[in-house]
Amino acid sequence: MSDMKTLVDQHKDRFLAELFELLRIPSVSADPKYSADVIRTAESVRDHLIKAGADKVEVCPTAGFPIVYGEKIIDPSLPTILVYGHYDVQPADPINLWTSPPFEPVIRDGNIFARGSADDKGQMFMHVKAFELMLQHNQLACNVKFMIEGEEEVGSSNLDTFLANNKERLKADCVLVSDTSMLANDIPSITTGLRGLSYVEVEVTGPNRDLHSGVYGGGVANPINVLCTMIASLHDENRHITIPGFYDSVMELSTVERAMIAEAPFSQEEYNAELKINDVLGEKGYTTVERTSVRPTLDVNGIWGGYTGEGAKTVLPSKAFAKISMRLVPNQTPDEITALFQKHFESIAPASVKVKVSPHHGGFPAVTPVDSVEYRAAAKAMEATFGKQPIPARGGGSIPIVASFEKILGLKTVLMGFGLDTDDIHSPDEHYGVFNYLKGIETIPYFYKYYAEMKSAK
Amino acid sequence: MSDMKTLVDQHKDRFLAELFELLRIPSVSADPKYSADVIRTAESVRDHLIKAGADKVEVCPTAGFPIVYGEKIIDPSLPTILVYGHYDVQPADPINLWTSPPFEPVIRDGNIFARGSADDKGQMFMHVKAFELMLQHNQLACNVKFMIEGEEEVGSSNLDTFLANNKERLKADCVLVSDTSMLANDIPSITTGLRGLSYVEVEVTGPNRDLHSGVYGGGVANPINVLCTMIASLHDENRHITIPGFYDSVMELSTVERAMIAEAPFSQEEYNAELKINDVLGEKGYTTVERTSVRPTLDVNGIWGGYTGEGAKTVLPSKAFAKISMRLVPNQTPDEITALFQKHFESIAPASVKVKVSPHHGGFPAVTPVDSVEYRAAAKAMEATFGKQPIPARGGGSIPIVASFEKILGLKTVLMGFGLDTDDIHSPDEHYGVFNYLKGIETIPYFYKYYAEMKSAK
Repeated sequence: MSDMKTLVDQHKDRFLAELFELLRIPSVSADPKYSADVIRTAESVRDHLIKAGADKVEVCPTAGFPIVYGEKIIDPSLPTILVYGHYDVQPADPINLWTSPPFEPVIRDGNIFARGSADDKGQMFMHVKAFELMLQHNQLACNVKFMIEGEEEVGSSNLDTFLANNKERLKADCVLVSDTSMLANDIPSITTGLRGLSYVEVEVTGPNRDLHSGVYGGGVANPINVLCTMIASLHDENRHITIPGFYDSVMELSTVERAMIAEAPFSQEEYNAELKINDVLGEKGYTTVERTSVRPTLDVNGIWGGYTGEGAKTVLPSKAFAKISMRLVPNQTPDEITALFQKHFESIAPASVKVKVSPHHGGFPAVTPVDSVEYRAAAKAMEATFGKQPIPARGGGSIPIVASFEKILGLKTVLMGFGLDTDDIHSPDEHYGVFNYLKGIETIPYFYKYYAEMKSAK
Repeated sequence: MSDMKTLVDQHKDRFLAELFELLRIPSVSADPKYSADVIRTAESVRDHLIKAGADKVEVCPTAGFPIVYGEKIIDPSLPTILVYGHYDVQPADPINLWTSPPFEPVIRDGNIFARGSADDKGQMFMHVKAFELMLQHNQLACNVKFMIEGEEEVGSSNLDTFLANNKERLKADCVLVSDTSMLANDIPSITTGLRGLSYVEVEVTGPNRDLHSGVYGGGVANPINVLCTMIASLHDENRHITIPGFYDSVMELSTVERAMIAEAPFSQEEYNAELKINDVLGEKGYTTVERTSVRPTLDVNGIWGGYTGEGAKTVLPSKAFAKISMRLVPNQTPDEITALFQKHFESIAPASVKVKVSPHHGGFPAVTPVDSVEYRAAAKAMEATFGKQPIPARGGGSIPIVASFEKILGLKTVLMGFGLDTDDIHSPDEHYGVFNYLKGIETIPYFYKYYAEMKSAK
């Protein structure tokens, strides 16, 4: 195999410039005003795949945003890797907290700053560029199929249908995804578990109109106060979630598993210092690493109601709203948890208000085995380029489609991500290390190589 | 005395048209983007006073928005009435809930719909028009001084200085204010007590930046969840406020006083039906009328944090905010209550967040005696035009300047308001009855007449 590091170095300026093109298109799938940009991004991914040498490239329509497909079948007897990624990005709000505009990528201190740089345009594009290199240098050790979607940040609601309708086309040996992070640049790791998600929006209505808080205050339920009380009651004093049945399906970890988690390098002091907090807050009886990976959560992601402008307005509002998400762990399911939430939330509403719970998207939690060919090939590839064996690590985020790949396509997924938890994905100043981007491109060909070898040795 | 009803009827179209001019200027004092409009409104009030026949009319600068002054001294031996009103208005948000634009007044079903129609442009302007009528028809029974301010909706923070610096110019026998409401058009009433106000803004900061709720959720304090818990804890299960010392200065009512309150016409059923609520929510042991007039409150007037746009964003935000106001009753003082709130709110914050409490404006509660000459003159005036004696009623809102008039000018205030609680002041679709506007203009001259008679009989 050619020296990938040397090859990547030769092309790195072009690889960065091409990624920047993609980052400049604001493909925010959550916000309808960016719809045309999302489509434009799909078309750009299509063009990049064609340029890289893929065949049968197509922007496949769905009921939502399209899925870009492309493939290269060099030898039907070789294993086939299905590469999954997404070209849509999170909203950039609050825009004013970005050091540089979210859709004008720049490099500062060795990092590419732009919305989507890490999640997931940068990580997805590594696969396109690695494929291009392998093809040009005759190093493609496996067949490859690309499936790049545009609705990951809004729940991938049309992906399952696409998978079900394209089983033949998507036939492969495994799914390879780079949409997760490593423990550190000098502590490579592979994600072996992901939390699922249940996401709901709640609306609490008090009086039929906004009222003067002097004239009505004290007499009428204030929907903001009521919403706060309802939200507060969802945790007890030990930060356990109080929704009846919420923990029923949670797979408790064994002492051995907890000991393994405790071995991963983690400094509570550095964690607090990096976030500028004096203390953490979480479920009693669990460590920070456990709380953020193997335990379910309930977080308010947004809240609003009443007067939020400059100065003071003495209004007793008619309505208050919140977006609430729950991270799930095996074997919780989004439908079960959303239903439990809805039932409980409605049950705790006082008679003085009306409550509406609207489910947004959900996703299944997933755990991937460390003894699979896929995991072993990824571990060997990272060892080849990082110089040390990666650590298996449970992640806190959700890639719900991992469960779909298993269920619909019967495929195992390997989560070989090159980001860092400090990349500020979903936050202002999202960034992705130039080192990580190039290291990803360098590592991916080794995965192909070792995967082909291990599969043929089997 | 001429028949005021006939005179008002003759001029009513012009009286409405002139008020509409005033309502068209968006004098929102809370929002800096309307500053020029607020000034323009002051100038319009000045022009109206000059046109009505006032002398020494002046737009008096303050550290904030100006105060419009004008006077008519017809005979130094007659009593002098100081008329107070305000030309600034509440913000019109949420604009999309208005049936017609807030600054394009229209009459529907006998009501003038516009921001400020009732609070207080419409009520203030009745005094200008009544003065004009009395002057033109030689019926002015008292001297009059007008003091119309532009910062009532943001706490009248420059009024006290103006009063202190203009004691001689403002010398009078009483203050007459129309900025309150009656029980109903067929149940005239005069406000004899008002609640005070303490208004604060709170900011809760968790991590130093917005985080991904998957990666960090469960491990780090979510400032929205924490804020909700803190707000929820400010009331106990009986809806008593839990701030230590909060009730220490509250003047408890006697059994006799509570019996008097219970006699005022009030239907809980109609109240609930009008607000479309199934139940009320308030302090245990008190009736709705008591809860909204003689008991202190704590209401969240606005809350915001995290992602509040379309769709779903899995953010764990850095900050959450709320605007919180407390209505005060005698003998609570805004400074005392604001300090108690601040101390308590900071004390209940978990170590995992930082809390900032910023006081906005405050105001003193006030009670006016029913046996004063002022009250008796107002009661007799309303009886003359409504055909029945008004009921004394405690109001829930705040006109903090009543306490300032007493303290700085040594003057009693009479709160002869003609609005209704259902006028939606501070809400979308604020309106003021054409009946109420004209009835006010008709009633005011009787107050002048009876006040002069009672004062000279004394």
